[in-house]
Amino acid sequence: MSGESNIVYIGRKPAMSYVMAIITSFTGSDAKDITLKARGRSITTAVDAAEITRRKFMKELNVGKITIGTEEIQQEEGGTRNVSIIEITLTRG
Amino acid sequence: MSGESNIVYIGRKPAMSYVMAIITSFTGSDAKDITLKARGRSITTAVDAAEITRRKFMKELNVGKITIGTEEIQQEEGGTRNVSIIEITLTRG
Repeated sequence: MSGESNIVYIGRKPAMSYVMAIITSFTGSDAKDITLKARGRSITTAVDAAEITRRKFMKELNVGKITIGTEEIQQEEGGTRNVSIIEITLTRG
Repeated sequence: MSGESNIVYIGRKPAMSYVMAIITSFTGSDAKDITLKARGRSITTAVDAAEITRRKFMKELNVGKITIGTEEIQQEEGGTRNVSIIEITLTRG
């Protein structure tokens, strides 16, 4: 689908779930790149998913820009806390 | 000390331990940059440590190159398994 933004949000599922999402997202569109977004403990899963996809399934993929940052999360009990985020862009070579 | 390589290895301690190590490493030398290296579950801690140092303690720091990769770990029971790694370079602005 055109107009679709090529973002895969990484959560708490096993890395292989996101590997499948990345592959589907690339093969289901003519997107040249896809950005993985993760925060907190899911950051490791994002790196795992990027590495597994690139090494085992789509060897033509390159790791593009990687950025880190901090997001303020609104807590239910009031106040905020900071959580780290990562964005990893994968590019079809 | 000159000749020292400016690497902080991130392990399983709380992020603040590594924040202190990064600050000490910068203030104890005239290093222009320091690289954080982490693997597996410590990847999130590396991102946390980089973000906390940069936002709360050394606002002149910039995030430089970030790379991800895969390392083969030799297992005690034989065989190998793959683990994701990250390297984050912090540069004094």
